[in-house]
Amino acid sequence: MIMSRIEAPRDEDTAATGTLLGRLRGGLPADAVLTDPDVTASYANDMASFCPAGTPAVVVLPRTVEQVQHVMRTATELRVPVVPQGARTGLSGAANASDGCIVLSLIKMDRILEINPVDRIAVVEPGVINATLSRAVGEHGLCYPPDPSSWEMCTIGGNIGTASGGLCCVKYGVTAEYVLGLDVVLADGRLMSTGRRTAKGVAGYDLTRLFVGSEGSLGIVVRATLALRPQPPEQLVLAAEFPSGAAACDAVCRIMAGGHVPSLLELMDRTTVKAVNDLAHMGLPESTEALLLAAFDTADPAADLAALGALCEAAGATQVVPADDAAESELLLQARRLSLTALDAVKGTTMIDDVCVPRSKLAEMLEGTERIAEKYQLTIGVVAHAGDGNTHPTVCFDASDPDESRRARESFDEIMALGLELGGTITGEHGVGVLKKEWLAREIGPVGVEMQQQIKQVFDPLGILNPGKLF
Amino acid sequence: MIMSRIEAPRDEDTAATGTLLGRLRGGLPADAVLTDPDVTASYANDMASFCPAGTPAVVVLPRTVEQVQHVMRTATELRVPVVPQGARTGLSGAANASDGCIVLSLIKMDRILEINPVDRIAVVEPGVINATLSRAVGEHGLCYPPDPSSWEMCTIGGNIGTASGGLCCVKYGVTAEYVLGLDVVLADGRLMSTGRRTAKGVAGYDLTRLFVGSEGSLGIVVRATLALRPQPPEQLVLAAEFPSGAAACDAVCRIMAGGHVPSLLELMDRTTVKAVNDLAHMGLPESTEALLLAAFDTADPAADLAALGALCEAAGATQVVPADDAAESELLLQARRLSLTALDAVKGTTMIDDVCVPRSKLAEMLEGTERIAEKYQLTIGVVAHAGDGNTHPTVCFDASDPDESRRARESFDEIMALGLELGGTITGEHGVGVLKKEWLAREIGPVGVEMQQQIKQVFDPLGILNPGKLF
Repeated sequence: MIMSRIEAPRDEDTAATGTLLGRLRGGLPADAVLTDPDVTASYANDMASFCPAGTPAVVVLPRTVEQVQHVMRTATELRVPVVPQGARTGLSGAANASDGCIVLSLIKMDRILEINPVDRIAVVEPGVINATLSRAVGEHGLCYPPDPSSWEMCTIGGNIGTASGGLCCVKYGVTAEYVLGLDVVLADGRLMSTGRRTAKGVAGYDLTRLFVGSEGSLGIVVRATLALRPQPPEQLVLAAEFPSGAAACDAVCRIMAGGHVPSLLELMDRTTVKAVNDLAHMGLPESTEALLLAAFDTADPAADLAALGALCEAAGATQVVPADDAAESELLLQARRLSLTALDAVKGTTMIDDVCVPRSKLAEMLEGTERIAEKYQLTIGVVAHAGDGNTHPTVCFDASDPDESRRARESFDEIMALGLELGGTITGEHGVGVLKKEWLAREIGPVGVEMQQQIKQVFDPLGILNPGKLF
Repeated sequence: MIMSRIEAPRDEDTAATGTLLGRLRGGLPADAVLTDPDVTASYANDMASFCPAGTPAVVVLPRTVEQVQHVMRTATELRVPVVPQGARTGLSGAANASDGCIVLSLIKMDRILEINPVDRIAVVEPGVINATLSRAVGEHGLCYPPDPSSWEMCTIGGNIGTASGGLCCVKYGVTAEYVLGLDVVLADGRLMSTGRRTAKGVAGYDLTRLFVGSEGSLGIVVRATLALRPQPPEQLVLAAEFPSGAAACDAVCRIMAGGHVPSLLELMDRTTVKAVNDLAHMGLPESTEALLLAAFDTADPAADLAALGALCEAAGATQVVPADDAAESELLLQARRLSLTALDAVKGTTMIDDVCVPRSKLAEMLEGTERIAEKYQLTIGVVAHAGDGNTHPTVCFDASDPDESRRARESFDEIMALGLELGGTITGEHGVGVLKKEWLAREIGPVGVEMQQQIKQVFDPLGILNPGKLF
């Protein structure tokens, strides 16, 4: 991971910082205000590479809505920028500190306030860990589907801020589809409720969805009402080996056109498979050019996998191996979840792209990425939520080599350009943050940017909420 | 249906109207500009009762995006209000004309531009009829789930404007969940694209969802990219009779807490059942206090219905009758779809409420509605998307009786107050329009209203887009 660090505050800022700290302490417990520079520096950035991060003036860890309101009122009064944070597992720099900011970490607001099996909802604070919620609702026979790879660490608030995806999206959709209502502290400290706790509701504009994916730039989410589903049967996984990426993508198209609804449909290319073996000795088949993992969580997953396996064979799969049981399935998923970590180990640093294309264009995306890797003489591993057309081309490079770093950055951009050319988006699930803000306008156009900036202005007229992100 | 009609334009307005018509004709074919007062008057209102409607200056029927842009540029230049319309089957007055407005009917923009079975999307113009789209995608083995009762008449554009629901929502969700991207003509005539045609995407704020349910108050939807699903197996329906509304609601809670996912779960009270029999001689059991209709579109619907039927019996059902086949299932659904028409025939006029409560509060909602009917000495039939907690208490009254009309209006309001008290919303799927705009603030609060009005201001600084609706 790489970041540039902006200089620490100059001396003349000290008095202003003193005022800020005094005000903050007026409404927060002593242990909720961190000022030790070594400590606050550790809150400076999320997990994205190549994203500048500043030095926070202070880190605050509120435990109540009122404390968050106090922080925002103080920030408004003193015109100090606020950077909201969850677990900082984000991959776009959206949680990176700006110089002199208040880092507003929500991780101490971590209570699950309600789980209701009849209404199939949970009400949570933003700092609840995704996996904690999943396990808690599981005890009621329910599930909260969104499962980003970081689910053991990431928070629901962070998931909402970045509109997280995950492995299950191909069947169950993304975070946005599970957020029914929010309590939000606005820039000036006022509290606003959006949405509902009912299954349906259309009273006024959908502000809830506006906040999902807004990367902390419109307000601070302090409570969320989430939709839950009944827990599906345990899923059974199948692995299929293909002689080319194109054949694997053909299989994906056949599966989707055939009306199948797998609970996951993931692709790992040869580079990724090898990286995972190197890291964790998983014994994955290194001779394959592309490995497809598919699963069903239906009443009869073996039968569904058999039908899917036949489509893989028709598309040219050389091997189709259904897992024997849940344990073997879990092993395959672990291999998949290790992919980005394993690719990071290849050359010490990675830039993880997140281009989503119409799934009918997946083969072209893979071929184009291969061309880009050749052009820039780089290792680019591709792992993809293939069923969604959401690829993560991951550029592996040696950050101590300036030329390789430059080529990495250029290839990263060229991958986004390719995605847009194919009718895709620059980000399927990781967000814009700092990393892709120059690309946002290329995707949504000048009118879209103008309207989005005006909406930002409505909620944050002073520009203190996570400035420098998105736009 | 009832409406008050505001006076026709005064003489001094004639010159302005002349200018308006001249400008409009400069960019529209002659047959796309309707000015005959008898004709334009027929576009004055949707299907809501008690909603004032004005007299349009003109009705335009564009066929292209450019023509819509011309209309909006003209409207902006001359500061003329624009009321967008689909099939005018709405139930909140959101499509009602205002005096001197341009009615912008999108019904001639009715092309299905693309159906893609691999990407599982359709691209359509706003005037496509919901049932037309459903049948067209059905030929590709796909389905477009949102199915408002008016699906044979209503347009996709109207469904998007009002964020329509339907019978299938309990399993498949609402319109909002199927809109991936939009082309929108803004108030000043500029074209903006939102969203995507990929399965996932998080580039910038979710403007797509902001437009869904915005009732034509933010811009004119001229194209939509919709998500499709594989066509499920044909559903099988079961009817269960209950000795009380409370017992039926208890069954609903048991079904949902039990982890079942029916493809519909509807409730008709005795008043509704009798009204349907009176209208269509369907032979529904009139001795029941509440009739529950449930369906599954799973691989083995009979087995799923048996499990559900057992829960109904445990909750006190006196009769549980599974349909023998698809034809019998369709008959039961027809009875359900006839409910509002049938209730309308009871006393000649109805006001249809649309209160959605957490489904755990459904019994209280039904009991409260009964109390309100008694208090106001009125017939109020209740039909409900019970699985969603979405009730349609329907006040039946004689519009020629001023006292009964007053009581109807008061009971209608009291039903919304009850819904809010139970943690629900004033509108689950019909929208705010004119009918409920005084209630919006009671639900979303002053801060919410302020933010929504400022968003309106961003997109419509001159206030020409469907003025007088929502706020």
